[in-house]
Amino acid sequence: MIYLDYAAATPMSEKAINAMKPYLAEDFFNPSAPYLAAKKVREAYEDAKNQIAHVIGAKGNDIIMTAGATEANNLALSGASHILYLITEHDSVRNIARAHGGEEIAVDKNGIIDLKDFASKLTDDVDMVSVSLANNELGTIQPIVEISEIIKKARLSRLERGIKTPLYLHSDASQALNLVNISVARMGIDLLTINAAKVYGPKGVGALYVAHGVKLHPLTLGGGQENGLRSGTENVAGAVAFAEAIADAHEHINGNRKKYEKLSEIMRRELLDCFVEPVFLGSRKKQLANFVPVCFPGIDAERIIFKLEEQEIYLSTGAACAASKGEKSHVLKAIGLSDKEINGSLRISLGEGNNEEQVVTAAKAICKVVGEEYARING
Amino acid sequence: MIYLDYAAATPMSEKAINAMKPYLAEDFFNPSAPYLAAKKVREAYEDAKNQIAHVIGAKGNDIIMTAGATEANNLALSGASHILYLITEHDSVRNIARAHGGEEIAVDKNGIIDLKDFASKLTDDVDMVSVSLANNELGTIQPIVEISEIIKKARLSRLERGIKTPLYLHSDASQALNLVNISVARMGIDLLTINAAKVYGPKGVGALYVAHGVKLHPLTLGGGQENGLRSGTENVAGAVAFAEAIADAHEHINGNRKKYEKLSEIMRRELLDCFVEPVFLGSRKKQLANFVPVCFPGIDAERIIFKLEEQEIYLSTGAACAASKGEKSHVLKAIGLSDKEINGSLRISLGEGNNEEQVVTAAKAICKVVGEEYARING
Repeated sequence: MIYLDYAAATPMSEKAINAMKPYLAEDFFNPSAPYLAAKKVREAYEDAKNQIAHVIGAKGNDIIMTAGATEANNLALSGASHILYLITEHDSVRNIARAHGGEEIAVDKNGIIDLKDFASKLTDDVDMVSVSLANNELGTIQPIVEISEIIKKARLSRLERGIKTPLYLHSDASQALNLVNISVARMGIDLLTINAAKVYGPKGVGALYVAHGVKLHPLTLGGGQENGLRSGTENVAGAVAFAEAIADAHEHINGNRKKYEKLSEIMRRELLDCFVEPVFLGSRKKQLANFVPVCFPGIDAERIIFKLEEQEIYLSTGAACAASKGEKSHVLKAIGLSDKEINGSLRISLGEGNNEEQVVTAAKAICKVVGEEYARING
Repeated sequence: MIYLDYAAATPMSEKAINAMKPYLAEDFFNPSAPYLAAKKVREAYEDAKNQIAHVIGAKGNDIIMTAGATEANNLALSGASHILYLITEHDSVRNIARAHGGEEIAVDKNGIIDLKDFASKLTDDVDMVSVSLANNELGTIQPIVEISEIIKKARLSRLERGIKTPLYLHSDASQALNLVNISVARMGIDLLTINAAKVYGPKGVGALYVAHGVKLHPLTLGGGQENGLRSGTENVAGAVAFAEAIADAHEHINGNRKKYEKLSEIMRRELLDCFVEPVFLGSRKKQLANFVPVCFPGIDAERIIFKLEEQEIYLSTGAACAASKGEKSHVLKAIGLSDKEINGSLRISLGEGNNEEQVVTAAKAICKVVGEEYARING
């Protein structure tokens, strides 16, 4: 099996699984229970939150654990009334933003934010800006510091003019967490979504970083856990596994980046060897190292996927949840691709289990299958 | 260690852990991905949902997976505008109900619903009734069929008079799932909350049964999973483990009930041997077999808990999340207990790991510690 869809899901690392184990059947106590055994579990939970927070330059208290990135995105945005969001955001941002006065920010042909469009839409009633750190289909890394500088200026201007509407920057870092060094303070991020399932941690576990002073509307009420912002008995095993996974990702971030830069370079070269002009999407310089989004105009990418599947090579056309509903990618549309180009696009996303041999084998298989398709179409 | 707080948390069963394992690092694929390996994961997920549904007499399609009971309760109630709820409900029902036109239904001294009070409050604008199948502090089992009969009559009356306000019955079965045979159809339940963490399954996993035709407001928007009612990549490992745990509970429901009836009888007899009048709370005939809520008026139950903890005997005063905030139990208040009685109350809840020897040892330890406290107080 050659798996090239790490952006859709990552397997749990052995370390993360081992970290989780003691909290399943031994230290299973409710962290809110009054006895010592439960208090130890509470400590493990708080330690895990501190570890998670540390990776993004925050404190455990600033972290609200959630059941994944979707919940974190919803929690971040559900209190806002006028949200500016990047047109290429994931559905969990787009759909909640639209329900809260959402307005789209345009991107260029590489999927990078159009800062002029952004600045022109940043009126005094905007209270939230949501721009992912890296896109989930293109891997495009956004200039988050430039964005937060513009926001800081807008805040200052509001202050000077006595306008009291707050203005926050939310960023979904689900895809970026593995490969981008994140510091919420340096980046000027007020709300940051992170996701265990994309960094070799457990599914159903995510978190939202919340800067001091940011007011949120809880999505669920109940026992008042997570500072009253997210009720429900804590998933200690999940948090501990996430902490282990994220610490591991952080420790190897530079090595991994180099590894994926090399592997994706090999993938690109192999594909360039077969085709005159495979169109690589996004700007290589502003893209997650493990992403190789590629377009073969005129080809039916879904046929390619099925043909590769027969050789146990797994990749996808884009976001799994959107693709499964048969929707055309709003991301590829936003960067100006025609329907024909969108239909011919593949998302290759590399990960932990890939090596040079796998990448070369997969590239050759893609070349063969795509070549056959071109031959079939051109008669 | 003698653990007597199974109502707060249960360890995962070996079966549930084993069921979960393959989905952590091998079959980890995103169930929405297009290739065969992912489709097999989708099948396992749907199978798990079917298994879970089967236990409550429903179909997998009627089940919305959540991150636990709190989310399920919130999802069930957040679309309602006038909710009648039992005064003894868990905070995850009370707090969301209060935000949606909540009105309390009284209970008698055993914590059983006051049907007259209920009927009198069931006006034509009530669109939701929320009554747990069994209470989390007293174990009191509610007459859910009688309640749903009253609701059916009210619906019929509304129909005859041309009143179009819908009326649904929600029940939180988190505590009951292990020991009560549930059939949503027979019981006339429209929305049922269940929780893996209370039946030896994983924490952070629960579900809401939703009858056909019931309209809900999703708490989160995004990829549109769970029929658009609960977006986010599915926690397949969690669902599979829950299915295993719930199937196991269901298979052994009668044997377990007998086991716990016997063990709690022993606990009661041992305590009766030491004290003239320990007050057992709730009505034995309408109570979960594994619950022994007991009151020692004048005693400080928290001191008892700390003293028992020294002997590695773990129990609690009531709901962990409420107790940890230092709140007096609203459940014990609702059944008419004085502050003095509330302060002297313990919740003993038995489970899988307990046997006769443990129960006798624990009872004797409780007798000794409570006896010493009485002696200290009475000088």
